[in-house]
Amino acid sequence: MLPITETVKKMKSVSPFVFAMEAEQRKAALLEAARLLRENAGAIFEENKKDLALADGLALPLKKRLVFDPVKLETVCKGLEELAGLPDPVGRVTLRRELDRGLVLSRVSVPIGVIGVIFESRPDALVQISGLCIRSGNCAILKGGSEALHSNRILFSLMRQAALSAGFPEGAYALAETRDEIGELLSCDAYVDLLIPRGSNSFVRYIMDNTRIPVLGHAAGVCHIYVDAAADLSRAADVVLDAKTQYPAACNALETLLVSRRIAPAFFSVFADRLRTFEEKSGKKLRILGTPEVAALFPCEPAKEADFGHEFSDLTLAVRIVADADEAIGHINRYGSHHTDAILTEDDRTAERFFRLVDSAGVYRNCSTRFADGYRYGFGAEVGISTSKIHARGPVGVDGLLTYKYIIEGSGQTVAEYADGEKTFSFRDLPC
Amino acid sequence: MLPITETVKKMKSVSPFVFAMEAEQRKAALLEAARLLRENAGAIFEENKKDLALADGLALPLKKRLVFDPVKLETVCKGLEELAGLPDPVGRVTLRRELDRGLVLSRVSVPIGVIGVIFESRPDALVQISGLCIRSGNCAILKGGSEALHSNRILFSLMRQAALSAGFPEGAYALAETRDEIGELLSCDAYVDLLIPRGSNSFVRYIMDNTRIPVLGHAAGVCHIYVDAAADLSRAADVVLDAKTQYPAACNALETLLVSRRIAPAFFSVFADRLRTFEEKSGKKLRILGTPEVAALFPCEPAKEADFGHEFSDLTLAVRIVADADEAIGHINRYGSHHTDAILTEDDRTAERFFRLVDSAGVYRNCSTRFADGYRYGFGAEVGISTSKIHARGPVGVDGLLTYKYIIEGSGQTVAEYADGEKTFSFRDLPC
Repeated sequence: MLPITETVKKMKSVSPFVFAMEAEQRKAALLEAARLLRENAGAIFEENKKDLALADGLALPLKKRLVFDPVKLETVCKGLEELAGLPDPVGRVTLRRELDRGLVLSRVSVPIGVIGVIFESRPDALVQISGLCIRSGNCAILKGGSEALHSNRILFSLMRQAALSAGFPEGAYALAETRDEIGELLSCDAYVDLLIPRGSNSFVRYIMDNTRIPVLGHAAGVCHIYVDAAADLSRAADVVLDAKTQYPAACNALETLLVSRRIAPAFFSVFADRLRTFEEKSGKKLRILGTPEVAALFPCEPAKEADFGHEFSDLTLAVRIVADADEAIGHINRYGSHHTDAILTEDDRTAERFFRLVDSAGVYRNCSTRFADGYRYGFGAEVGISTSKIHARGPVGVDGLLTYKYIIEGSGQTVAEYADGEKTFSFRDLPC
Repeated sequence: MLPITETVKKMKSVSPFVFAMEAEQRKAALLEAARLLRENAGAIFEENKKDLALADGLALPLKKRLVFDPVKLETVCKGLEELAGLPDPVGRVTLRRELDRGLVLSRVSVPIGVIGVIFESRPDALVQISGLCIRSGNCAILKGGSEALHSNRILFSLMRQAALSAGFPEGAYALAETRDEIGELLSCDAYVDLLIPRGSNSFVRYIMDNTRIPVLGHAAGVCHIYVDAAADLSRAADVVLDAKTQYPAACNALETLLVSRRIAPAFFSVFADRLRTFEEKSGKKLRILGTPEVAALFPCEPAKEADFGHEFSDLTLAVRIVADADEAIGHINRYGSHHTDAILTEDDRTAERFFRLVDSAGVYRNCSTRFADGYRYGFGAEVGISTSKIHARGPVGVDGLLTYKYIIEGSGQTVAEYADGEKTFSFRDLPC
């Protein structure tokens, strides 16, 4: 394999030809990929077994993510077919304006160019993300986890074969395999337009801190729920429990609960009942870290200052009592990670204030923070969730892999004519 | 004055309250700013004269940019009033989707937060850019050139006074005055969301290379025109001359001319006539750097390899003859800066291929590259021109200072209900 720099330099040079492909070719590549994956199912499972055999030392959750079985195969194939069926995201005209007679400006969606994707363990992520890159006309260099080496190799070679058969140029897609190639990739800001890291927080933070390439993602998900004085306490207890326990390892799971002082005794009493039921049914136990004021109302361990703003990613919850929505908002903007935060209230004005003042990618009322997800937003497929305010924020669908270019069609116009006052701009928006 | 880090930390903490202001308040601040500037015209001109008196050593173009006279005052005041009259860009709902009954997702435009603006000399830029920040509900730290110190101080204090009188919180705007504060500002990635440098290419490149804050701008403008075999040669000569000579120091001025071999002798003959007229009328002289093939057709100095891809910013033009549009496209994608490039042709299919394959923020047909400008695109005001593909590309209006947040209004929904199959998403788009 060529060194990474050579690979992405070549990729950059072929990327305009990928931009210029017809929508039908990109669609055909996705359908062919699904067909090839199903046709080679046996071989794929064989390769995956090799990875699993070498993974004895791994923790159980990591091993689970490494498995690529008939269920996962069918899920990714259906995903590719759904992507193929979506309206073409490339070449959409989002602005058309007559600047003057015979001088028309258009803004057209185009692929970003060369995407670097670095992900841990899950072989299904390789298929999903390369599918999104094919759909959006982007080239991609993919770096998977070494524990999935055999699975990634066969999956990548089938995706690549599908792309080539649909007319994608040689060199549009590449797989990087060794860990030291990450460092080289991070230095390729001349050729790679965007990096998408998928993995643990420390992994994403490392990528963000060590490259000048723009990074799409989030390093932390410290989500809050504020139970307001005007909350429906029974529904509030359900939502809090869901946000904390339904999948605690997710970035959109609840980490800190803020409760209005005015309803704290009543809320904790309802919550204690609900928690008891949950613990009995699941056999799991929630660990509550509370301030002294919480401890007076609810059995808990003492919370340290560092517990607020911390992403536990397990069944631990930090709890604090606040005076009102404004104190909750101040806490969230200070300690949060600007991912997703919710208020539980029946009061419209308080909710409106919370929506305006909380500076997060997702701001919710009366539902679980766990809804922060591209599938649940109806985006079909998800590139990742961004806590950046630049380019894309929140769950990012295929639109996050697109930019635009401005096209002007003229008939010989010079700027001097307008600067001299001989001609003037008329600025008339046309239908797109 | 507080050290920069303290200033932007405070700014970050007040920024949600600027987000939450009413449109009428932001509008009132702009109108009050225009009123205050006119009322204090005499004092402003006095301060500007102090700067001019100290600027004896400066080159004439820099001194010209430093002047703040009644004409410039009226221009910036009218600009502020126009900004006040534009539809409010904040709080626009760009997506509304019912995820399920009683669970509605909205995407709403919001300010980015804290903008750092670093600009050279022009005091009018301080007014324009702080006006754009006020309009879009962003906080801003402004760093002007030391040669405009007195002018910037009085202009900033009037802009700030206008913002405070309209109810903006204390600390939303600040002026940095000394050169060493730039270094400190560049390290404030925890508090500053976006940097906008306005100045020379080397200045912008320095900023880009020395910060982890996202930078909106362009380090180079190496624009090309390709005169195709199917060009109208008379119009082509006019457009080439305009793109090179109308304002050679601009980033959208022409630097390299590519000419189809099939019409090169005919084109250069028309161009020589046009050039003679220009040189006689203007008393200026174009310097042409050509390949040997060009030299055989047109008097010129020999071009070196390094002249291609170089931004001359004066009356120098590099010229090369190419076989066809594809060779021109290859040259542009390799040597260009992805700013603005044009084809001159009457052939629709060749133009379409050029539009698709040239990977630049602006791709034009049959008009001057000098049209790449926010005002000429009808954006009203311009933050700058971006050659990045992330966030904003090409001329950037007030939209470049906005991001969005996702809001969900629910009625107690938990994710578990959907994960268990008890409920399903309906995904119905609603009118915005």
